[in-house]
Amino acid sequence: MNSLVQRRILPWRSPSSSARSFSSTPLLCLIQPVSSLPDRVSPSYIQRPSNNLLSLQWPSPPRNILITKKKRTPGITSSLIEYVTHLSSTYPSINIILEPTSAAEIHAHLPFPVYTYDEPARTSVPAHLSDKTDLVCTLGGDGTILRASSLFSHAATVPPILSFAMGTIGFLGEWKFKEYKRAFREVYMSGASDAYANLSFPSPSLTSTPPTSPSDPLDKPLSYADIRGMSMGSNRTARILLRNRLKVGVFGPDGIRINTTSHPGDTYALNEVIVHRGSSPHLKIIDVFVGGRFLTEAVADGMIISSPTGSTAYSLSSGGSIVHPLVPSLLLTPICPRSLSFRPLVLPAETPITLRLGAKNRGREVEVSIDGKRISEGIGVGMEVRVLGEEVKSETGEWRGGVPSIVRGVEGLEEREEDHWVGGLNALLKFNYPFGDQDGER
Amino acid sequence: MNSLVQRRILPWRSPSSSARSFSSTPLLCLIQPVSSLPDRVSPSYIQRPSNNLLSLQWPSPPRNILITKKKRTPGITSSLIEYVTHLSSTYPSINIILEPTSAAEIHAHLPFPVYTYDEPARTSVPAHLSDKTDLVCTLGGDGTILRASSLFSHAATVPPILSFAMGTIGFLGEWKFKEYKRAFREVYMSGASDAYANLSFPSPSLTSTPPTSPSDPLDKPLSYADIRGMSMGSNRTARILLRNRLKVGVFGPDGIRINTTSHPGDTYALNEVIVHRGSSPHLKIIDVFVGGRFLTEAVADGMIISSPTGSTAYSLSSGGSIVHPLVPSLLLTPICPRSLSFRPLVLPAETPITLRLGAKNRGREVEVSIDGKRISEGIGVGMEVRVLGEEVKSETGEWRGGVPSIVRGVEGLEEREEDHWVGGLNALLKFNYPFGDQDGER
Amino acid sequence: MNSLVQRRILPWRSPSSSARSFSSTPLLCLIQPVSSLPDRVSPSYIQRPSNNLLSLQWPSPPRNILITKKKRTPGITSSLIEYVTHLSSTYPSINIILEPTSAAEIHAHLPFPVYTYDEPARTSVPAHLSDKTDLVCTLGGDGTILRASSLFSHAATVPPILSFAMGTIGFLGEWKFKEYKRAFREVYMSGASDAYANLSFPSPSLTSTPPTSPSDPLDKPLSYADIRGMSMGSNRTARILLRNRLKVGVFGPDGIRINTTSHPGDTYALNEVIVHRGSSPHLKIIDVFVGGRFLTEAVADGMIISSPTGSTAYSLSSGGSIVHPLVPSLLLTPICPRSLSFRPLVLPAETPITLRLGAKNRGREVEVSIDGKRISEGIGVGMEVRVLGEEVKSETGEWRGGVPSIVRGVEGLEEREEDHWVGGLNALLKFNYPFGDQDGER
Amino acid sequence: MNSLVQRRILPWRSPSSSARSFSSTPLLCLIQPVSSLPDRVSPSYIQRPSNNLLSLQWPSPPRNILITKKKRTPGITSSLIEYVTHLSSTYPSINIILEPTSAAEIHAHLPFPVYTYDEPARTSVPAHLSDKTDLVCTLGGDGTILRASSLFSHAATVPPILSFAMGTIGFLGEWKFKEYKRAFREVYMSGASDAYANLSFPSPSLTSTPPTSPSDPLDKPLSYADIRGMSMGSNRTARILLRNRLKVGVFGPDGIRINTTSHPGDTYALNEVIVHRGSSPHLKIIDVFVGGRFLTEAVADGMIISSPTGSTAYSLSSGGSIVHPLVPSLLLTPICPRSLSFRPLVLPAETPITLRLGAKNRGREVEVSIDGKRISEGIGVGMEVRVLGEEVKSETGEWRGGVPSIVRGVEGLEEREEDHWVGGLNALLKFNYPFGDQDGER
Repeated sequence: MNSLVQRRILPWRSPSSSARSFSSTPLLCLIQPVSSLPDRVSPSYIQRPSNNLLSLQWPSPPRNILITKKKRTPGITSSLIEYVTHLSSTYPSINIILEPTSAAEIHAHLPFPVYTYDEPARTSVPAHLSDKTDLVCTLGGDGTILRASSLFSHAATVPPILSFAMGTIGFLGEWKFKEYKRAFREVYMSGASDAYANLSFPSPSLTSTPPTSPSDPLDKPLSYADIRGMSMGSNRTARILLRNRLKVGVFGPDGIRINTTSHPGDTYALNEVIVHRGSSPHLKIIDVFVGGRFLTEAVADGMIISSPTGSTAYSLSSGGSIVHPLVPSLLLTPICPRSLSFRPLVLPAETPITLRLGAKNRGREVEVSIDGKRISEGIGVGMEVRVLGEEVKSETGEWRGGVPSIVRGVEGLEEREEDHWVGGLNALLKFNYPFGDQDGER
Repeated sequence: MNSLVQRRILPWRSPSSSARSFSSTPLLCLIQPVSSLPDRVSPSYIQRPSNNLLSLQWPSPPRNILITKKKRTPGITSSLIEYVTHLSSTYPSINIILEPTSAAEIHAHLPFPVYTYDEPARTSVPAHLSDKTDLVCTLGGDGTILRASSLFSHAATVPPILSFAMGTIGFLGEWKFKEYKRAFREVYMSGASDAYANLSFPSPSLTSTPPTSPSDPLDKPLSYADIRGMSMGSNRTARILLRNRLKVGVFGPDGIRINTTSHPGDTYALNEVIVHRGSSPHLKIIDVFVGGRFLTEAVADGMIISSPTGSTAYSLSSGGSIVHPLVPSLLLTPICPRSLSFRPLVLPAETPITLRLGAKNRGREVEVSIDGKRISEGIGVGMEVRVLGEEVKSETGEWRGGVPSIVRGVEGLEEREEDHWVGGLNALLKFNYPFGDQDGER
Repeated sequence: MNSLVQRRILPWRSPSSSARSFSSTPLLCLIQPVSSLPDRVSPSYIQRPSNNLLSLQWPSPPRNILITKKKRTPGITSSLIEYVTHLSSTYPSINIILEPTSAAEIHAHLPFPVYTYDEPARTSVPAHLSDKTDLVCTLGGDGTILRASSLFSHAATVPPILSFAMGTIGFLGEWKFKEYKRAFREVYMSGASDAYANLSFPSPSLTSTPPTSPSDPLDKPLSYADIRGMSMGSNRTARILLRNRLKVGVFGPDGIRINTTSHPGDTYALNEVIVHRGSSPHLKIIDVFVGGRFLTEAVADGMIISSPTGSTAYSLSSGGSIVHPLVPSLLLTPICPRSLSFRPLVLPAETPITLRLGAKNRGREVEVSIDGKRISEGIGVGMEVRVLGEEVKSETGEWRGGVPSIVRGVEGLEEREEDHWVGGLNALLKFNYPFGDQDGER
Repeated sequence: MNSLVQRRILPWRSPSSSARSFSSTPLLCLIQPVSSLPDRVSPSYIQRPSNNLLSLQWPSPPRNILITKKKRTPGITSSLIEYVTHLSSTYPSINIILEPTSAAEIHAHLPFPVYTYDEPARTSVPAHLSDKTDLVCTLGGDGTILRASSLFSHAATVPPILSFAMGTIGFLGEWKFKEYKRAFREVYMSGASDAYANLSFPSPSLTSTPPTSPSDPLDKPLSYADIRGMSMGSNRTARILLRNRLKVGVFGPDGIRINTTSHPGDTYALNEVIVHRGSSPHLKIIDVFVGGRFLTEAVADGMIISSPTGSTAYSLSSGGSIVHPLVPSLLLTPICPRSLSFRPLVLPAETPITLRLGAKNRGREVEVSIDGKRISEGIGVGMEVRVLGEEVKSETGEWRGGVPSIVRGVEGLEEREEDHWVGGLNALLKFNYPFGDQDGER
């Protein structure tokens, strides 16, 4: 079962590890299975007065940190090594989880073990990962965040995601990479009691009992008391935007669910689910049902059902509006529809939407993609995609659901931090530059 | 103060009323001031299980019914007379309120008095009307509903609106006029206790004390016990969609509020507020603030801030998406912007939006319209339009705010009646007809 | 080489043909190869005074008539039989060419032989067809016209096309099927001298020497003198719209032309050539060159280069304008571009446009389609699609090039017949029906 | 008649002119009427082999140069003085024409007289200007070019226009201001015979007979023989793009032409003619006729009829495509139409289009603007705007009509200079920048 990881972690037993400069103890340079980590610590998300963002509150410090990076981007590997090294030296109790390829690529450069998982098959998700990850960090762009989120597409509870933009600016509210020390500290300490705020650091107990020893997983959670001195004051909690996802089920013509991951049940999408003609030359005829009632027969290249987060992705290219992530809604956007009056729709998040491939279709099957990953082929006439907005809700001021995204705060600008989206939009609407200029006249 | 009504109601004192055939008692054919009516009865809107629509519940039967009709439409007057006559004969306790012009036009054809109000000045609303109206009925299209809603543009609580489509189909969920008897009965009885459902009708007390006598306004509310026998069973309550409005404040360059109605404070808009260059040939430069933060400088013919209800009006013509009325949101849609990347935005309903006419503008002033009514001129550089979505909320299952629109139910289709919007959209997306046809290929 | 036709025409030698009721001479019920027909007769297209349409002028009556019909449409076969029977009985000198499947389907119902050709392979065109066809008739919609036009996608000179709409209205100016007798006569006689207009018909010589005998192909053209009496007067010439096509060449990364048909050289497209990501999930990065100069790097699902005729097809669904077929132009329309400011372009018809798949692309190859037919796969990075508008021009009042489309005339409305496009647009802009209605106000 | 100019030129007779440092002869610092200039010299526009641009060929050197500048732009006046001073000192035979306000603003800074004209009334054009101007230079942006073009909106022949961009880049192909010496020399010498190309300069005859003396207007044209030595070789002719204009006639409900300028007959528009609701709150109902035939009833804020040059102005903001200036066409673009299927149309340039304000309209009148200038008010129901594309054509290789725009050439890039439009578009499509970035994925 674990064959892929087994193959990948072979090197750590190799005597050639003596070549590594950092490490006198070759055994540290390991790649270990994520299943050997202690169980996940889940934070709370607390409503803040007069603010749409929530406060992150850890019951105990996060330990298992998954870091993903953008693919095919030269130079990003050294940033990853720099980041991992910082985390490991500053927060000794932390365990680093990397994607299989990253782990293989950099573990030899690190004087400590890293954790990874089996690369899942195309239509699957990694085993154990969602049970072990306390916090996700992404180094890349919106696509990297999307990919990280996909690793939890079967999980009702997603760990908080701290994302660093590594190049062009994105839409999902990332931090700059040069801020990584402040950013991580803010997230790590978020919710720690003030009582320990000004005590000296580090405490001796930390170094004497290295909690990262793979043979001795931490059984009881680390306490902020152990790491006192790092608090930034109770005001400096991390700010969370809960992005609501789509719950997507795909059903064959026989009414039987088509598993889109290795886990049974619905798949969650952060951006969108797309039905598209793919390489078929024929327009698709898609019956659209809203709230269980037939709405219309769309004749188009395809249909997009998007979350507000996904409204700035494919839906935007197809003519959809930009929807703020806090508007509880789903977008239904046709792709190149034959009808000129089929405009994009914005529907209540709790409305079930069904797309059914009608009997009139001919030619090849349609393609269904969830957050950019195409699901298994063979979806033909009679197929249905059923979508419902994920419930993101509060009972007694504590929120649940969605993808908890850590929003970049501006130092000394506490009151305004909720405007992240406006700021991001603003940055992008610079491209809102006049097209041609004619003396202020048209 | 009441001069206009006074002038209009002179005829009712005229002996020439003897010419009217229906009436042996000329005194009944009066036009009387709305201020003489008993005070308004306000219904509750109760959450229904597993349903997005609410149940209308009268504490006592509605008495004061305002009826508005579409202007400049031949043939609609006879429908108005038919409707009024039916109401008056079937529900003797009801008082009919008409717009001044309608009152003058038809009162001579009626064997009972009608009520009206002074036609307000351009930037004003009628006095007393919102304190006296229990229920509004409209005969016309979406524009007629908009105009009726404008009569309550200063009021935090709008009476429920029952609208009949008189010609082309609209978007706001009207009933067919031929259904008027069933429709009114359903609204009138909505919430009446089952206890009286099957008793015989009418009760003698009703005729002996005519409650419409102008010299004897009803001091105590009518009881459903008095009209027992009409109930349709407790299931048949009227279904209400609370359409949330925009709260609009217009402020001069000096920061002082410009009164857009005769009432101080904000004006409510059902559809949209528009800032437009009007007859100025120059593009306007409008600074847009969202949540108190500068978003962008729009260079455009104008800007629309629309409610979801207004999303199928001007915003749609300007490229905005169609937004379901139950999505708590505001639409920010530029009109012919110079920038090609300034796409329509959908923002949370509770986000304050400000449009400010920047100092760079030259040429003439902009025009500000609220639900199609232009406010006073003289709005120049420095002017601000501030908009906030009206709060439509429930405390303990009872809802408040918005424009309570009575949604057409389908007999025998109790469970699905919430799909009115889908039905309306469907009817209109017939125009979703393929543009050209090429054998199913493009 | 001719194997496919050989297989198909086997039945005509079969003694089982005696079962056919119409035919006492089994030899007539043949399917014969199109190569056995006399060579094509090409008409002239003469400029008309004060008119954008041209006059069709046959040097001698057309003989070889290709008829294509819409696929997968029940009921159309009986129309085809009716039409073929009419032509054969009224114009005995005519030879009927059918597509292979149609020929196989109906030849047994006909008391005379039909001609056909080998079904070409996917990326090919039928042999001989363009050398033998005098006139094309289509029974179907715009797609059927497109398919008929594709049969001549390698030919510089296309026969005139007479198209009948068999169901939903199209954009390409078809005739109604019930008009087929008048329509064909008008085309057949177009340009015949008045001298024979009023003489009696038929002449005995016609029947005595059946020109359709396969063993005796006509060596000298038929003369209108032989069929005098059918002329409709010199005014009643058929009106021709020359639709200009795109000349498309596809070149591999090695700069070597990829043959898109069995004929070497460029392929002609009536509607459009499309580069599309197909089933690749990644946006394509397409370098666009106009007039040999780099214009921009398009990041999109794909790009469309369309003729004005194709402007109402895929380009329209992708946001392009509707371009009148007489505007000498090419349309460059991006499909779901990531940039919001990449608007559709309209370029001079004689401008060479190149789309090159840049080196930045990853993932799978793009798909290239010409008039809806996908060309061979394997088009990857470095591939170029080069397009130039076909020259449609006059030297001394006689025009050449394009697809000569016979425009429906209205009897007694001689002066206005050039408005066909406006008429067609008008018919379709009925769908230009208001979206919602709000009393004339918005 | 000439009162405005007379009033403006009073200062030149004033003794106070002695205060000016440059001038010992006060008489030189004059503002003189444009009517006193010698008559205009009109160039030819010659077809070039394999090139869409034309060659400018002066029969004799241009003398009367009109220079216009952008309004309300600080700093541009010093550029104007620099430019005028250069022209006057390098080309002594040149006469400078300025707009009235520019003339009044800078004449005191110049040691030579300038010419001007009466500021015309709103709906008028300056007298004499089109009979006297050989060449127009503009310092500003697209709006300045538009305004300069408007000065010749009644003239069938417009002088060539050399435009310098003074700030943000425009769409109409301007030169950079720092290139003014090369640019002007290229235009001035364009078409001069090679015979004089290498002779020394200046010739004595030039200084002995100052051709700018206002009391002695040049009766016979200056010869290039007089200024030999300046030629840049016959290859270096200026490249001309003839932008075709719209011929616009406005007709009242009574069918009588409404004069839009002081000159009778049609007005020419370089960009567009717009019919707009202006400050009326009601949608306008506009009957559209194409080629004399009713096309559709547009219900919209207004309609734009645009030239290809105007396709990047208001039409673009309203959803129209970008049309290359060499596509002979008109654009018909609705402004915020109620129908979602009324797409922008591109029609043949020679098609007459009529917009008629139908009888169904109510409320206030529409506004008609030609190139941003509103024409007289009072245009109500029954009004018609009739538009036809200006004929820009060649007989025997010499072209006529349109606005001759001097296209910027790139030194040493002779063969590619026709790509100016692509270059301009490219510059602007930088704003074609990706909206958001998601790792190359969406």
